[in-house]
Amino acid sequence: MTVSNRLSASRIAAAVGSGTTTAVAVAQDTLSRIEAYDAVQPQIWISRASRDDLLAAARAVDARVAAGENLPLAGVPFAVKDNIDVAGFETTAACPAFAYQPEADAGVVEHLLAAGAICVGKTNLDQFATGLNGSRSPYGIPRNASNLAYVSGGSSSGSSIVVAAGLAPFALGTDTAGSGRVPAAFNHLIGFKPTKGRWSTRGLVPACRTIDCITVFTGDTADARLVDTVVAGFDRADPYSKALNDRPCAVTRIGVPRRTQRVFFGDAESEYLYDKALDSLSTLGEIVEIDLAPLLEAAQLLYGGPWVAERTAALESILATDPRAVDPTVRAVVEPGKGMSAVDLFSGIYRLADLKRLADLMWEDVDFLAFPTTGTTYRVAEILEAPVALNSNLGFYTNFVNLLDMAALAVPAGVRANATGFGITLIGPADTDRALLDAADAYLATADMPAPPPLDLEGKMQTVKLAVVGAHLKDMPLHWQLTSRDAEFIGTFETAPSYRLYAIADSVPPKPALVHDEGGAAIKVEVYELGVAEFGSFTVEVPAPLAIGNVTLADGTTVKGFVSEPRALNGAEDITHLGGWRAYIAGKA
Amino acid sequence: MTVSNRLSASRIAAAVGSGTTTAVAVAQDTLSRIEAYDAVQPQIWISRASRDDLLAAARAVDARVAAGENLPLAGVPFAVKDNIDVAGFETTAACPAFAYQPEADAGVVEHLLAAGAICVGKTNLDQFATGLNGSRSPYGIPRNASNLAYVSGGSSSGSSIVVAAGLAPFALGTDTAGSGRVPAAFNHLIGFKPTKGRWSTRGLVPACRTIDCITVFTGDTADARLVDTVVAGFDRADPYSKALNDRPCAVTRIGVPRRTQRVFFGDAESEYLYDKALDSLSTLGEIVEIDLAPLLEAAQLLYGGPWVAERTAALESILATDPRAVDPTVRAVVEPGKGMSAVDLFSGIYRLADLKRLADLMWEDVDFLAFPTTGTTYRVAEILEAPVALNSNLGFYTNFVNLLDMAALAVPAGVRANATGFGITLIGPADTDRALLDAADAYLATADMPAPPPLDLEGKMQTVKLAVVGAHLKDMPLHWQLTSRDAEFIGTFETAPSYRLYAIADSVPPKPALVHDEGGAAIKVEVYELGVAEFGSFTVEVPAPLAIGNVTLADGTTVKGFVSEPRALNGAEDITHLGGWRAYIAGKA
Repeated sequence: MTVSNRLSASRIAAAVGSGTTTAVAVAQDTLSRIEAYDAVQPQIWISRASRDDLLAAARAVDARVAAGENLPLAGVPFAVKDNIDVAGFETTAACPAFAYQPEADAGVVEHLLAAGAICVGKTNLDQFATGLNGSRSPYGIPRNASNLAYVSGGSSSGSSIVVAAGLAPFALGTDTAGSGRVPAAFNHLIGFKPTKGRWSTRGLVPACRTIDCITVFTGDTADARLVDTVVAGFDRADPYSKALNDRPCAVTRIGVPRRTQRVFFGDAESEYLYDKALDSLSTLGEIVEIDLAPLLEAAQLLYGGPWVAERTAALESILATDPRAVDPTVRAVVEPGKGMSAVDLFSGIYRLADLKRLADLMWEDVDFLAFPTTGTTYRVAEILEAPVALNSNLGFYTNFVNLLDMAALAVPAGVRANATGFGITLIGPADTDRALLDAADAYLATADMPAPPPLDLEGKMQTVKLAVVGAHLKDMPLHWQLTSRDAEFIGTFETAPSYRLYAIADSVPPKPALVHDEGGAAIKVEVYELGVAEFGSFTVEVPAPLAIGNVTLADGTTVKGFVSEPRALNGAEDITHLGGWRAYIAGKA
Repeated sequence: MTVSNRLSASRIAAAVGSGTTTAVAVAQDTLSRIEAYDAVQPQIWISRASRDDLLAAARAVDARVAAGENLPLAGVPFAVKDNIDVAGFETTAACPAFAYQPEADAGVVEHLLAAGAICVGKTNLDQFATGLNGSRSPYGIPRNASNLAYVSGGSSSGSSIVVAAGLAPFALGTDTAGSGRVPAAFNHLIGFKPTKGRWSTRGLVPACRTIDCITVFTGDTADARLVDTVVAGFDRADPYSKALNDRPCAVTRIGVPRRTQRVFFGDAESEYLYDKALDSLSTLGEIVEIDLAPLLEAAQLLYGGPWVAERTAALESILATDPRAVDPTVRAVVEPGKGMSAVDLFSGIYRLADLKRLADLMWEDVDFLAFPTTGTTYRVAEILEAPVALNSNLGFYTNFVNLLDMAALAVPAGVRANATGFGITLIGPADTDRALLDAADAYLATADMPAPPPLDLEGKMQTVKLAVVGAHLKDMPLHWQLTSRDAEFIGTFETAPSYRLYAIADSVPPKPALVHDEGGAAIKVEVYELGVAEFGSFTVEVPAPLAIGNVTLADGTTVKGFVSEPRALNGAEDITHLGGWRAYIAGKA
């Protein structure tokens, strides 16, 4: 199985347009990539073009190129979030009971196909685009491309993974509360959320119709610009579409949340990466701290106020006829909207107008904002435990943007130790879309971002098995360091018969040192499985002379486990003959 | 009592500014005018500046002028609808239980006072600006300035009469559904409803906050321009305020409703005057018939859809604490808003967006619209009989304008026989305010409008007493022509003893001719009282050789009544000796 590097739409279009390659060859390569990645996450897709259809579409593009057409996206494969209509594919919005066969392409898809792009399939999403994590779908849970234990981000989960996994150079997402930005951050992508009205939303299943945007995930800003050039423009059939009106936006004052208002939900790594991003940004312009309060209050209106009823309105029919077809979390989110009154909504509309004015005046002090895209990320298992609360955390820095009519561009800003992406989002007033892309280029040139980490192809990083041998054993003084990390007890095992066990001198609480020695014995260990991030933070707390290394078990498999530095043996007592730490402690008592 | 012609703000400001007169002299004249008109309609006011305060304010303006200040409205008196804050006056919104003492002037009032204008008082209105007729106020019912039997129009009833009666050259109104235009039409005024956001609405009691506008009534377009120059501009404290952005608007294609879609509620006179206005307009540009349907559907959302809840939201507190303080008609209008859901409102918001798009595309075909301001007008007595249905009729051509973000300018377009005004409204897309004023000048130059009719100072025209003598008597064949006009039976009387009665030859049904003859006798008549318009339409139907003239009764008073042409006597039978028509008919039977 081969999954190569990410693709570039610009390069594919140039190659196909110049005859260096053909759309058919690109399509064949795409099919191979997709099939290969099916071994990892087939659940990123809801439906796909058949091989025959894809090759036929590619041949048609080749014919157009041969006929002299200049196609800006000649032969470029792309995927489409399954709440956007593409003729020939069912639109499900991740709800099979809701599915319908659209008669026409969505406005943006029309433009892309006309430009020579080829739709390879429809991608999974948080049902009805309600969620920021990717776990709310009956079609399975797309996971982070670099670490399968973690959420992909949502609601445009599948589309982000398609691009991150190099299956297509761009994919369409949508964004109401951050759905086109959060997955970009987590998967080391560009996520471009244009100003409402810049890209037609005709043919989009509404979440909150008044603020929904179609977005794109790409590997770089050049591809985001290219797609924008093809799809941006007035669509008279979309009542929210408006004429293009690009506004210049100098990069001289960059707004960031006051330090006391920054929230990372305990994720020190994100905080560190954000500070690092601000260091880079400070070479481009002055960093200005702004008051987050009005933005956060606007955000509250979306999921904690009357805009919930906009989602209810979108689901009115299915909630009436087949409520059990709706994902239980999504249903719990949207059902309170039924009880909201028009008077409540008008009150919300007035408050939003006040907050919009405050936000507009903010642009007198700063040219754009540079916020963390999210304060942290979560494992899938964590999200499933607290599906609403943790999801809300993911929207902390994104929820206000659409309500306040802003443009936003999510940009990579570093890699966590667990390989998930940390990102910042550049946010500007309406119609600064192009200016944001330029600012992102300036930032990325300064930030010297590392290449995205390799794909997690086998889920190895999802959880880690850890052999503990001393104070972390069940009922021992440091055992809480495992339980507090939801570590799962796998069993009591013995190591291969090639270890010695020592009681370290003067250690409080008493601790052993496990030392590999071909002439040693089998030592009793307990094996726990825990999330990779938890494993990381656990490892952080391991004091010298102990260390986390590799321990070979009796059956020959190797797990992570406690080992020690040589100095651990200074004055230590060899207790190998006891066969394990429990016997030693029992003897002391 | 003297009530002279209408005033001009431009001329007053020029005279005060140049020292030709003083603000104090203007204020004294204003006080005389106001006091004189109190004998006619004191109920146009809710509160007024005291003589001392007014003169003190005028002295202050004179001092500013003397100090060299250039004041565009030096010494110009103006009135303010009592839902707009003026410091020092209570704001009631025509609901005593709602009244409060504002701490500051409304944004527009601030500008006017700074420019040297002097507020003379606060005017009556349909409570909470909910109504288009003027009858919904506990402070009394302002009546049409030219015919006291008729409605003033509303909700800015008092302000329109202040200007029409020459008490001040301009007065502020407000407009959500037509309240700044309908009274202008009925009282032969300019009514200028700027684009939402052009004039600050800070300090305005909301009706529908998202679409409310402050407006002005003036006698001519020059004054409307002058006031606009003083008050237009961005107000950061009003979340709905926006930067000025005047759009040119050529007058080449003028949109009018398709003939089949025009509605005049049976008022042939209005229909005639509208056609005449279009004749004038056709010399300025091409008349283009447009489809009224999307505009009417938008209008439906205002009083027949979820925007009712916006009025409910504005009254939420008083409806909860003191519902009986609310005018019963207003309450009946706004209370259904309580039961509307946020989902209903979102559905309305979507439908409005669709209709807004249709309306926006309409501007590709026409430069502006020229609609009747209203299709007809009503007597106060009629409105009180059917306060909701007839009020709705008044909004037929006005309700959609604010919801669709248009600018509008009501302009006189003729005088009905009953002296009430018929008007047209020029309507353009947002930001065509100045262009509309220019178009109005071009229209008025072509239309050669007569001077406004004299004020109705004594209510003479309110109703007409009519003496009938023959086929219109009770139980006679044509009596229905009175009952169908709600004519009130006053009594059976005798004429002065100076009439002869003839039975006209070959008349079907049999009819008499009443002929004045000093040598005659007293003849029995029945006297009915009916509305002047009804009297007019009744008179229209009187066939030759009969006519409506004056008939002197036994007590010496004169009423309108049936007389005849001389030819009525050809072959007629003198029946004076019978003393009346009933005896003649009885004898025949």
